[in-house]
Amino acid sequence: MSVPPLPNVMVEKLVRAALNEDLGRAGDITTDAIVPASTRAETALVARQKGVVAGLDLALLAFRLLDPAIEAAIERPDGSPLAPGDVIATIAGPARGILAAERVALNFLCHLSGIASATASVVEAVRGHRARICCTRKTMPGLRAVQKYAIRVGGGFNHRFGLDDAVLIKDNHIAVAGGIKPAVERARAAVGHLVKIELEVDTLAQLEEALGLGVDALLLDNMSVEEMRRAVGMVDRRAITEASGGITPTTAPAVAATGVDLISIGWLTHSVRVLDIGLDYRGELRLRR
Amino acid sequence: MSVPPLPNVMVEKLVRAALNEDLGRAGDITTDAIVPASTRAETALVARQKGVVAGLDLALLAFRLLDPAIEAAIERPDGSPLAPGDVIATIAGPARGILAAERVALNFLCHLSGIASATASVVEAVRGHRARICCTRKTMPGLRAVQKYAIRVGGGFNHRFGLDDAVLIKDNHIAVAGGIKPAVERARAAVGHLVKIELEVDTLAQLEEALGLGVDALLLDNMSVEEMRRAVGMVDRRAITEASGGITPTTAPAVAATGVDLISIGWLTHSVRVLDIGLDYRGELRLRR
Amino acid sequence: MSVPPLPNVMVEKLVRAALNEDLGRAGDITTDAIVPASTRAETALVARQKGVVAGLDLALLAFRLLDPAIEAAIERPDGSPLAPGDVIATIAGPARGILAAERVALNFLCHLSGIASATASVVEAVRGHRARICCTRKTMPGLRAVQKYAIRVGGGFNHRFGLDDAVLIKDNHIAVAGGIKPAVERARAAVGHLVKIELEVDTLAQLEEALGLGVDALLLDNMSVEEMRRAVGMVDRRAITEASGGITPTTAPAVAATGVDLISIGWLTHSVRVLDIGLDYRGELRLRR
Amino acid sequence: MSVPPLPNVMVEKLVRAALNEDLGRAGDITTDAIVPASTRAETALVARQKGVVAGLDLALLAFRLLDPAIEAAIERPDGSPLAPGDVIATIAGPARGILAAERVALNFLCHLSGIASATASVVEAVRGHRARICCTRKTMPGLRAVQKYAIRVGGGFNHRFGLDDAVLIKDNHIAVAGGIKPAVERARAAVGHLVKIELEVDTLAQLEEALGLGVDALLLDNMSVEEMRRAVGMVDRRAITEASGGITPTTAPAVAATGVDLISIGWLTHSVRVLDIGLDYRGELRLRR
Amino acid sequence: MSVPPLPNVMVEKLVRAALNEDLGRAGDITTDAIVPASTRAETALVARQKGVVAGLDLALLAFRLLDPAIEAAIERPDGSPLAPGDVIATIAGPARGILAAERVALNFLCHLSGIASATASVVEAVRGHRARICCTRKTMPGLRAVQKYAIRVGGGFNHRFGLDDAVLIKDNHIAVAGGIKPAVERARAAVGHLVKIELEVDTLAQLEEALGLGVDALLLDNMSVEEMRRAVGMVDRRAITEASGGITPTTAPAVAATGVDLISIGWLTHSVRVLDIGLDYRGELRLRR
Amino acid sequence: MSVPPLPNVMVEKLVRAALNEDLGRAGDITTDAIVPASTRAETALVARQKGVVAGLDLALLAFRLLDPAIEAAIERPDGSPLAPGDVIATIAGPARGILAAERVALNFLCHLSGIASATASVVEAVRGHRARICCTRKTMPGLRAVQKYAIRVGGGFNHRFGLDDAVLIKDNHIAVAGGIKPAVERARAAVGHLVKIELEVDTLAQLEEALGLGVDALLLDNMSVEEMRRAVGMVDRRAITEASGGITPTTAPAVAATGVDLISIGWLTHSVRVLDIGLDYRGELRLRR
Repeated sequence: MSVPPLPNVMVEKLVRAALNEDLGRAGDITTDAIVPASTRAETALVARQKGVVAGLDLALLAFRLLDPAIEAAIERPDGSPLAPGDVIATIAGPARGILAAERVALNFLCHLSGIASATASVVEAVRGHRARICCTRKTMPGLRAVQKYAIRVGGGFNHRFGLDDAVLIKDNHIAVAGGIKPAVERARAAVGHLVKIELEVDTLAQLEEALGLGVDALLLDNMSVEEMRRAVGMVDRRAITEASGGITPTTAPAVAATGVDLISIGWLTHSVRVLDIGLDYRGELRLRR
Repeated sequence: MSVPPLPNVMVEKLVRAALNEDLGRAGDITTDAIVPASTRAETALVARQKGVVAGLDLALLAFRLLDPAIEAAIERPDGSPLAPGDVIATIAGPARGILAAERVALNFLCHLSGIASATASVVEAVRGHRARICCTRKTMPGLRAVQKYAIRVGGGFNHRFGLDDAVLIKDNHIAVAGGIKPAVERARAAVGHLVKIELEVDTLAQLEEALGLGVDALLLDNMSVEEMRRAVGMVDRRAITEASGGITPTTAPAVAATGVDLISIGWLTHSVRVLDIGLDYRGELRLRR
Repeated sequence: MSVPPLPNVMVEKLVRAALNEDLGRAGDITTDAIVPASTRAETALVARQKGVVAGLDLALLAFRLLDPAIEAAIERPDGSPLAPGDVIATIAGPARGILAAERVALNFLCHLSGIASATASVVEAVRGHRARICCTRKTMPGLRAVQKYAIRVGGGFNHRFGLDDAVLIKDNHIAVAGGIKPAVERARAAVGHLVKIELEVDTLAQLEEALGLGVDALLLDNMSVEEMRRAVGMVDRRAITEASGGITPTTAPAVAATGVDLISIGWLTHSVRVLDIGLDYRGELRLRR
Repeated sequence: MSVPPLPNVMVEKLVRAALNEDLGRAGDITTDAIVPASTRAETALVARQKGVVAGLDLALLAFRLLDPAIEAAIERPDGSPLAPGDVIATIAGPARGILAAERVALNFLCHLSGIASATASVVEAVRGHRARICCTRKTMPGLRAVQKYAIRVGGGFNHRFGLDDAVLIKDNHIAVAGGIKPAVERARAAVGHLVKIELEVDTLAQLEEALGLGVDALLLDNMSVEEMRRAVGMVDRRAITEASGGITPTTAPAVAATGVDLISIGWLTHSVRVLDIGLDYRGELRLRR
Repeated sequence: MSVPPLPNVMVEKLVRAALNEDLGRAGDITTDAIVPASTRAETALVARQKGVVAGLDLALLAFRLLDPAIEAAIERPDGSPLAPGDVIATIAGPARGILAAERVALNFLCHLSGIASATASVVEAVRGHRARICCTRKTMPGLRAVQKYAIRVGGGFNHRFGLDDAVLIKDNHIAVAGGIKPAVERARAAVGHLVKIELEVDTLAQLEEALGLGVDALLLDNMSVEEMRRAVGMVDRRAITEASGGITPTTAPAVAATGVDLISIGWLTHSVRVLDIGLDYRGELRLRR
Repeated sequence: MSVPPLPNVMVEKLVRAALNEDLGRAGDITTDAIVPASTRAETALVARQKGVVAGLDLALLAFRLLDPAIEAAIERPDGSPLAPGDVIATIAGPARGILAAERVALNFLCHLSGIASATASVVEAVRGHRARICCTRKTMPGLRAVQKYAIRVGGGFNHRFGLDDAVLIKDNHIAVAGGIKPAVERARAAVGHLVKIELEVDTLAQLEEALGLGVDALLLDNMSVEEMRRAVGMVDRRAITEASGGITPTTAPAVAATGVDLISIGWLTHSVRVLDIGLDYRGELRLRR
């Protein structure tokens, strides 16, 4: 099933800013000097490696905002698996606009597809286990909403979107509060009825203390696989269990095998590699009319 | 020698946006519920791995914008080499503000230090050669100015900042213009006297054709090391030569040994890993007054 | 216990916009024409009716943004009860700035104090019952974060901050999904582990169907007090129960007596009356230096 | 006669901001999870109480900005009288977009219709008298232009739009200037030829002093009805007379009977109740193509 | 008497935008490369020609936003007459910041001083006559508030600030309305009590028709001096008379001698020459501490 | 050959801001009161003097943003020569929108056409010489990109767009660096390979010192014509030579005759006169359908 797209009103400002960041104060001086205004081109967004497409709407919006006369035909919408050579979409219209928007469109598309693809590979690695893959707040400044969207496209789930939509009690909070119990109680007293509370525990002793406080989720931070397994047993589905700490596609299956509900992975948004996608020039378009 | 910082007026909007992206519509509900307003903390930004620091000003600005009462003492400014455990700066003041700004500060600092560190490692790999390391326009939307700054901090140089500050003639431009010569001539006729012209060539035949057109720089795209060497010889310092195409710290020395002037690397900004830096809690501060 | 304030970085843009909305393209032409630049005044924000103060930080920020030389001494911070004549804060400094910012400061302060006061009166009305008072998404465009903050100041709790931080399944969703069960199941499958699910039910029959689906909260919409009482019994604390539908301070006690966990009230943010607060002129200040 | 609408360019930023305030960082997660992308719905904006519609353009813009495929048919444009059950407009198209924009659209529509309706009721109350009803600068931050528009829709008139478009001399100005006369003279000397001057007087003695200074309007602040009557006689149409101070639909006729030209009412914008308007779901639309 | 300055909150956004327009994506690369961070300079804003200073606050804000460590001492505030060589202010502090902000500061200062100086020269030319000099809406996009401020600094007065703060009925309005009378009547019926009505007349016949309609002001458009004199006589102070149409310092005295109340001049804002002001380098500052 | 237009995405924000600056908080109250919503008008943008058109896209965008129903037919696109009476474009549609956008559209069009026309006149004055005419950074705050575009439309070339796209070493830099040589060397060491270096020299002695340092361009600042001639000889095409300092159409030919490559002129952007263009009303349009 496809992931619902973000409405344009949520991303248009971002795409406009990215275009203006690239166009600067004079626009695409290379293309403007060399390519006549009347030249029309047909191009295609083509995958150069295996992966999952994400961010196509933003890429197409970049072309359209640069020149509304540019038209796109989508072949593989967000969420589609990609093999090298696969055409994601064809882009046709005034060549100047296509060339001027190309880099911005690709910067969105390659980065977000990179996130979706990496997410999908970890999701695939833990298939058969109950563990969902999710992201963190370790995102690129300004890009959180679209990065988290790409996580969903890759089959992952989202953790908190910000500091305001759920409680996550960490070691420093516990230290200041003087213990796990007062920390949890203060949080519960303060927040609304639709806010969940998650607690980070670093040891099984802490976990023991946490059980019975009725938190919604427990973040097992940097535990060994064996500790995690024991932790999952101790929790016994009374709360969501989340594994965290440098988990990779290679280590994920063992972590998932502990029975945790969630595996959260920061590098999916802070250190992911782009998916290699290019804009292939297919030739000049003959006059449309 | 240290790299000049970007003035705050260039980055304040970005940092404010990142803070609001994280604070959302209710702020840090966890910290607000658990940490009393009067609690003051002393913390330190500490490197967890080897690298080069970049983005400290943005990180400190995040803390200061969250609460002007937060004070910082810089130990290792941008450009400093880092070993695991090194303190970059100490941050002290109202604990709520420190905890609320922590993630945003780290998101800037870890990402930009990641860029600087990766740049520095490639710069180191080609030491002794004339080749400079430079970046591309494959940047994160909205972050170009700060990413390119981090490249400089790492000892690299900047390529174009956008479509408007230099001419870079690529294959599609050549195709539309009907050849290298008309493309270069059109560009030269159009642009101002402070704009340089670079031409991408994919083959030595193209290079042959390009020589004599007086372009400022030649981008040797995806050539083999042997081709590059011959290209450098053909150019014979009459223009800047730039090597491009999937170059890594491992392959960089061989590329540099061809005598090229520049090696441009896209992954430094589009696929770089963060440098692991954390905010260590050192304890509650006793009352200042 | 006092409610944590919103950091300035969350509200500064709003206050700046409000000032510029009032200053227009020429500023305060009356004051500029009549009041000399050197005149300094001492003034006080004074309550003219009983209530609870909220929004003082925004009001003071308005004065400070208009002229940083304006100084304030807070007498009754947000959350303080007010009797007629109570001084909330004294504001002293250049008279031009004080007069120019007065209306914007009061517009924030009177509106937000109005919300806090109304909230407090309903909270008081249900004292002794378990029911918490909460708000809705029926807010003034652009003011949601500060209105919801004022609800907390008044002793209330916040419902969803937007469409993105919790699931609230309403009649239209059920109609489209073809029933309560598929609607709940689709939601649960899609959202992250920190997202709660609330379901609106209009009848006890719907409630019957809903029990067993494990939703976190049930919104009893426009039920009679008798129906609500039965609903609370049927739920038996297996989920949060929320009463909704035109509840006033007068009707609230009966609703609370049904044992519901929450009473949500739209008019607290969409139709509330201001609290009457004025800026009293206490005379010209003698030269400070 | 209908009131000219505000051009979209004046309100689009406001509507976009309101949508993003509600959509947050993930959009409408409930609707996205439950309602398929292909579902199309027909809905209607329906009045639930008597009043006057205002703000329909903003509501429709909210739907259209969320999804340009949403179509609207206007039945009762701004200024139309409403009876319970009256359809204001039908809204049809992709169900996801309609549901996601619903709350923002209604927040604008119900608030602005509330202002127009309240204004109309006071206008009606003083029918037969010369008194016009007008608003103040006691508006919701950020919403002044649209609130003042709603006043006009309800048959009212606008007072100053800000500090910059007319002079209004109040008690503090008089105190600083050392009297009514110097205050008026300073103002007249400073402002342009298209700026009118209004003076607030609290007593008939002040009014006596003011007459002969040639101000354009006199604000009779918090006077008794009897005082107002005498004031109107004293002014004898040599200036506009404005009555101000806690006037309600009930007290308005007596105030109007004094012969004042204007009655200004702050609560029309700062404490008005919404008009109850809902979005009724009329069923799923069959495929358009 | 000095003209009240615009509060910073009204101009800060403009100055920030101007700085970022100049700094682009890399800042002042010349200064950053050549001038050490530790170099401190003392400089002075010096008039190179006769005139009147305006915009100093914006210039100083530019320096301060670039680097808060830059300090200024004002010698000749806005409104001061300038002779060649006069020091307007001294600017001292980090040399990098001073050089980076110099152009933006001067662009504001020279342009606004140009307006003030030109205004003052026309004001001087009509001294002894009743005529005030005023501006129009023919302003530079985005700069209206500051340009109109500079007009005031030069001793001029402001016409409308926009389409919304006064009625100005022109020939096209009259044509559509079917005559002067219906046009004026429609306007009077629609607008609030603080809005003045001005009517443009091109001939004495039109003026004849206009008298008796009670408009506040009459714009005598492109009339000959003789026609204007007759027009002023016909109006006989029953309304403000405004002369308009290509008036220069040379022609202004004859126009003023007709007895008109106002002379409005578009070129003061749309075609004015800068006042030549430079930033003189006075030498490196010795260490302050 | 026509100059490539700036894409709308680069200028839309500017045009929107200009419209809102003029519309204020109430819109065009004159037109709204007098002109019925159903009135449609046909108008034409007509040149009143000789010149070159520039900025037509911005003017048309202003009309379209005010009301999308306004239609334009372009007769003379940017770059076209204009004689008095020439029609630039016809504008037809709802009369209210046309009248409300008129001033903003003309403010852009007249100013930018003024720049293009002045540029063209200087370009014409030096025809036959090698000298190109170029602009400076002495631009109106916020308008640099469009002003520099107008320079190109007039046949001129652009100098730096900001502080970041080329190095321009001036006297203060040389003073701080302790000489021309260290200044140039520091700059060369710091900047990327696509950044050119220009050096300002005030005397032939400085020029002598500069030759051999390999800078790309030499700015001959305020030299006499005779000095310039000798300077050009000394440089002998080894670098670009740029003449600067108060050059007018009258003095330009003599300067050009020295053989300089470039003549840069600040007044083209900071002190240019508008080109007189008006919007002529051609009558009411009959119903379109």
